[in-house]
Amino acid sequence: MITTLAGGVGAARLLRGMVRVVPDGELTAVVNTGDDTILHGLHISPDLDTVCYTLSGRNDEERGWGLAGETWTVMEALEGLGGESWFRLGDRDLATHLYRTQRLAEGASLSTVTTELAARLGLGLRVLPMSDDPVRTRLTLAADGHEIGFQEYFVALAHAVPVVSVTFDGADRARPGPGVLDAIGNAEVVVVCPSNPVLSIAPILSVPGIEGALRARRGTVVAVSPIIGGAALKGPADRLLTELGGESSVLGVAHQYLEFVGTLVIDGLDASSQPSIEALGMRCVVAPTVMHGPEEAAELAKVALTAGRTG
Amino acid sequence: MITTLAGGVGAARLLRGMVRVVPDGELTAVVNTGDDTILHGLHISPDLDTVCYTLSGRNDEERGWGLAGETWTVMEALEGLGGESWFRLGDRDLATHLYRTQRLAEGASLSTVTTELAARLGLGLRVLPMSDDPVRTRLTLAADGHEIGFQEYFVALAHAVPVVSVTFDGADRARPGPGVLDAIGNAEVVVVCPSNPVLSIAPILSVPGIEGALRARRGTVVAVSPIIGGAALKGPADRLLTELGGESSVLGVAHQYLEFVGTLVIDGLDASSQPSIEALGMRCVVAPTVMHGPEEAAELAKVALTAGRTG
Repeated sequence: MITTLAGGVGAARLLRGMVRVVPDGELTAVVNTGDDTILHGLHISPDLDTVCYTLSGRNDEERGWGLAGETWTVMEALEGLGGESWFRLGDRDLATHLYRTQRLAEGASLSTVTTELAARLGLGLRVLPMSDDPVRTRLTLAADGHEIGFQEYFVALAHAVPVVSVTFDGADRARPGPGVLDAIGNAEVVVVCPSNPVLSIAPILSVPGIEGALRARRGTVVAVSPIIGGAALKGPADRLLTELGGESSVLGVAHQYLEFVGTLVIDGLDASSQPSIEALGMRCVVAPTVMHGPEEAAELAKVALTAGRTG
Repeated sequence: MITTLAGGVGAARLLRGMVRVVPDGELTAVVNTGDDTILHGLHISPDLDTVCYTLSGRNDEERGWGLAGETWTVMEALEGLGGESWFRLGDRDLATHLYRTQRLAEGASLSTVTTELAARLGLGLRVLPMSDDPVRTRLTLAADGHEIGFQEYFVALAHAVPVVSVTFDGADRARPGPGVLDAIGNAEVVVVCPSNPVLSIAPILSVPGIEGALRARRGTVVAVSPIIGGAALKGPADRLLTELGGESSVLGVAHQYLEFVGTLVIDGLDASSQPSIEALGMRCVVAPTVMHGPEEAAELAKVALTAGRTG
């Protein structure tokens, strides 16, 4: 059993390599739901959808989110009615949200709905929401101390505003999703995907019990750094690390993950940081971490798994 | 001021004539919301939408519901996911439901949302939900005494099953929508559209205060019979009248409306029933009531208005 902690795009890329090197049925992804939002009455789970769409080959590679070959009839009509359309929902993507919302209203848990969708999309890996309880990532703006929701920050404001703190509303009352603690406790290796440490991995850790389960087996937990040469490939991870008092570097990531990650995989570009990371008490493996396609992702997956098995 | 009580298709047809003979701003439609339902988390108001789509010329004349030139991308994708798709929601129709649901979640009332949508569609008449509070039409099946919701009866079962009773869940706690009682009290003429007496008009009357307001000015209330030659042009009105102990005839309609309608407009086909209706103490006008187009609807509107003005 291999278990991964996953956010959106970066995680989905690595997972596309993981499924090439881990047999069907032996791979689990524990996915961030802190980005989930209710819009137009619909329950939207962006990271779960990014993972499922990417792993089923349905994602739009070029746009970086949503489904390939998507149409926008509903959004255009909604704009015509003067409705809120800053959060772009494609027609076929909407079907996923209608399905999820209907099933949740019928009493199904988010885990159950996710399993149903994953099965319908023909996925071989197991996809688990970090929690079936609502946990909502909220950010406090540096400019005026105003607190906003994740999607307002990420989409409406295009994450172009400095923040001073990030909180996970509801986390104190949330329980890990069914199977999550077992998936971590029983895994041969746990891989923390190259996702945003602040916005994708931290919400998973905010659910009581999950970080403890990782610490208990720190030696076999491997993280792939989402920071390469001081910058994030995509999204605001680099800025957020700095804004929240850390450092936008592989060393900054190592500090963030020190308590529960035994090995950090960093890119060759950052090889000079290897001694500093090891000096913290964290093993460090240098390997190509930029994934242009599934082949490179599979190579990176092998590196991470080997590191965890020898951890 | 002219006020109408309206269900879906039959009402929308007459209203299309009304707007030709009543100046903009002087016509109000009080619309049934007993058919409203929540599906996939979306608030759907079928009668409000039928009225608004038809009056804005956007309705699909041939299919009899929804928007003309509609596409079905979302529904097809939902079917692909194994989702519930018996209630067909077109792509552009969905935009209306997304808009309404979002605004309701923001705290806007159904009346406010309806006013916004009517304005956006360029409607000249005022469209008022019968109530901003939830009233849900429910039917008890003859076969097994099982109670089902309106849309399950009307759409899923294609209204092909006998019922023994109809109730309006929530009606006892519902208040008339803002402006409804004034629209009835201050109208020169109130016209009860040729809608289903049991499923479209009765829910409006079930809201405390509305039937009383009509009774208070019975002389100026005119109904157009939805039954012609013993049958409904569309839908189950004829069967329901019989199933619930009444009669599927203009006389049956007269009995149903006796307490609050001063004049019944019946089709020439039913002219022989005129004396029996007048014997009940209800005025009766004979006129062509089948509306093939807006011209005929305008003629029928004139007949109803004249009857009310001389009532």
